[in-house]
Amino acid sequence: MSKVAVLGSGSWGTALSIVLADNGHDVRLWGRSQKQAEEINQHHYNNQYLTDVKLPSSIVAYTDLEASLHDADTILLVVPTKAMRDVLGELRNYLDRPLPFIHASKGIEPGTHFRISEIIEEEVPQHLRSSVAVISGPSHAEEVALRQPTTITSSSLNPEAAKYVQDLFMTNHFRVYTNPDLIGVEIGGALKNIIAIGAGMTNGLGFGDNAKAALMTRGLAEIARLGLKLGASPLTFAGLSGLGDLIVTCTSVHSRNWRAGNMLGKGKSIDEVLNEMGMVVEGIRTTKAAYELAKKEKVEMPITNVLYDVLFHDKSTKEAVSELMGRVKKHEVEDLKIDPL
Amino acid sequence: MSKVAVLGSGSWGTALSIVLADNGHDVRLWGRSQKQAEEINQHHYNNQYLTDVKLPSSIVAYTDLEASLHDADTILLVVPTKAMRDVLGELRNYLDRPLPFIHASKGIEPGTHFRISEIIEEEVPQHLRSSVAVISGPSHAEEVALRQPTTITSSSLNPEAAKYVQDLFMTNHFRVYTNPDLIGVEIGGALKNIIAIGAGMTNGLGFGDNAKAALMTRGLAEIARLGLKLGASPLTFAGLSGLGDLIVTCTSVHSRNWRAGNMLGKGKSIDEVLNEMGMVVEGIRTTKAAYELAKKEKVEMPITNVLYDVLFHDKSTKEAVSELMGRVKKHEVEDLKIDPL
Repeated sequence: MSKVAVLGSGSWGTALSIVLADNGHDVRLWGRSQKQAEEINQHHYNNQYLTDVKLPSSIVAYTDLEASLHDADTILLVVPTKAMRDVLGELRNYLDRPLPFIHASKGIEPGTHFRISEIIEEEVPQHLRSSVAVISGPSHAEEVALRQPTTITSSSLNPEAAKYVQDLFMTNHFRVYTNPDLIGVEIGGALKNIIAIGAGMTNGLGFGDNAKAALMTRGLAEIARLGLKLGASPLTFAGLSGLGDLIVTCTSVHSRNWRAGNMLGKGKSIDEVLNEMGMVVEGIRTTKAAYELAKKEKVEMPITNVLYDVLFHDKSTKEAVSELMGRVKKHEVEDLKIDPL
Repeated sequence: MSKVAVLGSGSWGTALSIVLADNGHDVRLWGRSQKQAEEINQHHYNNQYLTDVKLPSSIVAYTDLEASLHDADTILLVVPTKAMRDVLGELRNYLDRPLPFIHASKGIEPGTHFRISEIIEEEVPQHLRSSVAVISGPSHAEEVALRQPTTITSSSLNPEAAKYVQDLFMTNHFRVYTNPDLIGVEIGGALKNIIAIGAGMTNGLGFGDNAKAALMTRGLAEIARLGLKLGASPLTFAGLSGLGDLIVTCTSVHSRNWRAGNMLGKGKSIDEVLNEMGMVVEGIRTTKAAYELAKKEKVEMPITNVLYDVLFHDKSTKEAVSELMGRVKKHEVEDLKIDPL
């Protein structure tokens, strides 16, 4: 039995807490809202994020970060990429021993182009972390909370850490597979949100499944192109945290990145979309980071480039999609070519 | 301007006829139903297969195969795999000159394990065919008929033939990319129907998007494993006719393979399903062919094997899915490993 501090009490943090509780662990679920913490501790619900799901009583909510960490033996980070450095900067003050860090966030930091594990390594001194791992894959929080069958990947540069995550989470309905390719797992999970925005956009513009499938296919190819340049393995992009997560995110109206793209396609401005959502849309910042990275690494990423222009330079969504569709005829293999496959 | 005999007047044959007509070609659309031919020729509708879609008047329907071939300069085959040898056996009697053969059918023949292009080569003497090509990719017929943006792959062992198909079909909204990997294109298009049956089955059993995404991910991996053993290129399975077509077929209720699986998941017997559908479900025969092929080639195909047992040996769908989910924990990469990648 472990004592896990789950930092971030949104839908994903709460769903993963349920998995951990089902597996016999004690969970300290930290978030900033006092009202939410009371709802969880008194009534065992987190209705804003997981409506009508009764939480196990071994999940205890905290708003005090220090208290949530007090006797924790494992840290699971599920905060938005943008908030990651703030949370880490605060939490390192409360630790006096090395703990395993696991994260379940999906993003790339603009400017630095750091993956989340790199942010953790920069913010948390080495003597306070025994390992850094990620858990990522096709997993709507709502389904995980309902114990629907789900498969997911754990990854770390340290094989023992990936195995620790596997043992920590594995249940009959939540299957965890390890993959040593940390770069590929983090890149796939983060960049699929860009394609989800594009998929939502084609829907908002009135296009159908044929266009969406083409976008997803070419989207995965460009994600893999960048990933390989950064040192990832091509197999990872064909796996759960690549293709699997892309499918779930692009084909479900539950995905907030898809919903943001859909609203853009229907003609709303980016500010209107963000106001209306009231939630973090990771894919927007990730588009900026991936755009910068592609330029720096000289990798062709036509979908990312066009979406960057839509999100940051007011390009019309119609123009964007017709640009993606209307390319000169050529061989498919040129488009998919991924050196050094 | 070409004169194309389109053999097979179901939804896909009719939709491709619209593309050809839009591109300025004359189309002779052959089918067996007199009533349908009259509806097409007199009212320009094929309402049984493409409801409410007005057909261009350059599409002329025939029930007489010989007449439809009379002055054709190109043959497009869009009949079910099961009917392919009959149609070819009849058609070769009416030809006196070599014509380019294109097919848009998706299946593998049980017993011989022939792809469609191999069936064509066996049934049509060499002096009556100038080339054999395939057109395949993510393309609901309904969307193509409505001129929704669609991208698709043409392939042939003869590069000129693939390019001929590209030129024949390419419009602003129907983009054709060539790919020289004929084996991969045909295998991907055929075997994705197996996974679509499985995806429908998980839905019928009440599982969600997480389970479906996992099934599709592992499904594509096993298709690629078999394809590579047969000489296909791994890139093709990541392309439009592999991943792209898999996405469209597994995530849409329009797919008849998905619908058949869904009914099985809800507890209907295979005979009930086939009676209720009243249409060919290519994936069922393809499951048998792929099962045989995997055995012969010694390729691990767990999803295909389990579905074969459901379809041909009355295995319960619940048992099948729990068998697929409940495998021992291991590394993801073992599962995705595709020699000789």
